[in-house]
Amino acid sequence: MIILKGDNLMSKLVLIRHGQSQWNLSNQFTGWVDVNLSDKGVEEAKKAGRLIKEHGLQFDQAYTSVLTRAIKTLHFALEESGQLWIPETKSWRLNERHYGALQGLNKKDTADKYGDEQVHIWRRSYDVLPPVIEDDSEYSQAHDRRYAHLDPHIVPKAENLKVCLERVMPFWEDHIAPDLRSGKNVIIAAHGNSLRALTKYIENISDEDIMGLEMKTGEPVVYTFDNELNVVDKEKLDD
Amino acid sequence: MIILKGDNLMSKLVLIRHGQSQWNLSNQFTGWVDVNLSDKGVEEAKKAGRLIKEHGLQFDQAYTSVLTRAIKTLHFALEESGQLWIPETKSWRLNERHYGALQGLNKKDTADKYGDEQVHIWRRSYDVLPPVIEDDSEYSQAHDRRYAHLDPHIVPKAENLKVCLERVMPFWEDHIAPDLRSGKNVIIAAHGNSLRALTKYIENISDEDIMGLEMKTGEPVVYTFDNELNVVDKEKLDD
Repeated sequence: MIILKGDNLMSKLVLIRHGQSQWNLSNQFTGWVDVNLSDKGVEEAKKAGRLIKEHGLQFDQAYTSVLTRAIKTLHFALEESGQLWIPETKSWRLNERHYGALQGLNKKDTADKYGDEQVHIWRRSYDVLPPVIEDDSEYSQAHDRRYAHLDPHIVPKAENLKVCLERVMPFWEDHIAPDLRSGKNVIIAAHGNSLRALTKYIENISDEDIMGLEMKTGEPVVYTFDNELNVVDKEKLDD
Repeated sequence: MIILKGDNLMSKLVLIRHGQSQWNLSNQFTGWVDVNLSDKGVEEAKKAGRLIKEHGLQFDQAYTSVLTRAIKTLHFALEESGQLWIPETKSWRLNERHYGALQGLNKKDTADKYGDEQVHIWRRSYDVLPPVIEDDSEYSQAHDRRYAHLDPHIVPKAENLKVCLERVMPFWEDHIAPDLRSGKNVIIAAHGNSLRALTKYIENISDEDIMGLEMKTGEPVVYTFDNELNVVDKEKLDD
């Protein structure tokens, strides 16, 4: 990588939403529950890697969440594109939105119990919180070793997209943005809502419009930034 | 993890030599050439992960080389033991010994050309260097992007175990040892010779004896250290 000290320094950021998970198949709310990829999800991740290779994208740094489905999506995509060796950093800040007490519930059962409208509000409103999860729920992360080093007061028990965005942004500020400004190309494999949060910031999308944004699983989105972190190009990779 | 400020702080270090590679099958010298695992190698890595899980070993940090066969061994072992989420750092310092101009050659052909005795010396002497690889060899890493950030003068073109050990040790000093002293449990997936180098230091093995040490592929070796980095226990995990 040649570092040019001028305005013409460009960098690329590739976002990949993890492929289909086993709970997508069983129609359960997932959030922070560590569900694995389905076979289809593995294929989606490998396809993303092939597209990355075909487009000649080379990365200097990879980021992902601490959830297996995103980590494996990253690994499959990097291996398929011959870049499994690049530095990788995982952070809870890139996790999926925490779905509170809905985690583990079947989406149809939840709609039957609370009504379609209430569930729609929990799923699609920017700033309405779902009910919080109890620490003794089998789907709680209160006793999960991967969060044991965090201030217990900041580990969420339910999030809307607004709260999710607020915990994603420090990771952009401290890691992703500095990499991009120094000319590094970055790949992030993460989740529907943590990527929605990043997209909202990058594209300056309103609170009202952001919930309508749907990223396809396994479809790499490529941003090109100038040295002031203005977006100069956006491209979705597909066959 | 509870940090005890006293002499009774123990930490564990698990070493795993990567499983069988495709060039083990074709009987070629590998070194820094980025050869993938064979199917058997994948199974060995997964088995290592099952043994780790059965023994209840929990890690705080993972290290590996920048070579795919070690990285994938780490990932399979971590996934099988439910710890794919732990922090991972890759370093060229954990790479296999660089085999110089022998890289890519068939071992039998090489013996036919140079004689059994010469090949034995290159393979088994502590401080005799094999012939250096030319930059224009298809098996050279001179133009490999993963080493492009390094001082070109320190990128090896051939190594014996002595030289290999000298470039592994700064990684022990700067990363592994500080982790262990702070009570962290560490897993390292690497290569026959970079692990030999670590083992030589940890067990204080002589230059003469170290070349006789053979680590089995995919068999986790577990060291327990006290706070002064003295080995208080060593165990090999097997069925």
